[in-house]
Amino acid sequence: MGSAAMQTSDHQQLGMELRQAMRGLASSVSLIASTDDSGNRFAMTATSVTSLSMDPPSMLVCINRGAAFNKVMQGGRGFSINILCADHLALARLCSSRAYGEERFAQGQWRRDERGTPFLADAQAAVVCIPDARYAYGSHDIFVGKVVTVHLGEAIDPLVYADGSYRVLKEDVLDLPRAYAAPG
Amino acid sequence: MGSAAMQTSDHQQLGMELRQAMRGLASSVSLIASTDDSGNRFAMTATSVTSLSMDPPSMLVCINRGAAFNKVMQGGRGFSINILCADHLALARLCSSRAYGEERFAQGQWRRDERGTPFLADAQAAVVCIPDARYAYGSHDIFVGKVVTVHLGEAIDPLVYADGSYRVLKEDVLDLPRAYAAPG
Repeated sequence: MGSAAMQTSDHQQLGMELRQAMRGLASSVSLIASTDDSGNRFAMTATSVTSLSMDPPSMLVCINRGAAFNKVMQGGRGFSINILCADHLALARLCSSRAYGEERFAQGQWRRDERGTPFLADAQAAVVCIPDARYAYGSHDIFVGKVVTVHLGEAIDPLVYADGSYRVLKEDVLDLPRAYAAPG
Repeated sequence: MGSAAMQTSDHQQLGMELRQAMRGLASSVSLIASTDDSGNRFAMTATSVTSLSMDPPSMLVCINRGAAFNKVMQGGRGFSINILCADHLALARLCSSRAYGEERFAQGQWRRDERGTPFLADAQAAVVCIPDARYAYGSHDIFVGKVVTVHLGEAIDPLVYADGSYRVLKEDVLDLPRAYAAPG
């Protein structure tokens, strides 16, 4: 019994330490948007987004299986990953608030493409995907989207989430880019 | 034939557009480190890293199947995800340079844990994992690590890669954090 209690405690301690470590993992803020079978729109703010492969062009997003948006994603309709810029703070807040369903589309230049997939027309970049794989792991699903269309904005000034707050990047570059030094 | 040529062109165009979109997806810079069966160390700079689940505590990293480091990861030894801070620019460059194997450990406060897994002791956070799943998709593998230990540094000042350059965050916060507004 002492051992079991110790394990629980260790497990909780590890979770707290990982949460603290993840506070420091700076991430671009994106809105993921999709529809249900009736065409109703849903969106959520997400930071667990990365590019995956260029062949085929694809991205992934990790979504808690307990989130309402997870069920929408499991419906298998097209979805968009809308990378936000610095002046989209209000949108990021709205899509992580208690507003539900269509209420989250009250702000922002939302459009639908020919498949009916909602995307944010003035995003820094809006990447429209069709779902191509789902990997369940622990409390979350990894949704892989095969990219079908990319809408590019003009400037790059990403909204970033780090240390529990929304932030932006300093303008200065730490060093000149070198082709071989691009991280993989 | 005209149609096939068009498809190829569309595919290349899509790839270029996605690359441009991904330039704007700001990401923390991490070093992933592991060993082969003989205990030789390998490391690479990576930005396709996210937290995955808190139950179990886990993270993921996407690695090109053509990268030498992918073979090391497929060996299935423990690995670490070392989140870099702003003053680790030289390490980020070294671990994405032509330096190979042990050469990449010439700088930095590298240690080994009791399992022999290398981790960066002065990282902003070093998250030591055992591999728990691998999902192959397109040109890349998604490696899932179950977290076994977290080494936390003191400050949060992440090294970020965006728009083809290494960057840091502005100190100011865009807005006060609100509990319900944390992105999922």
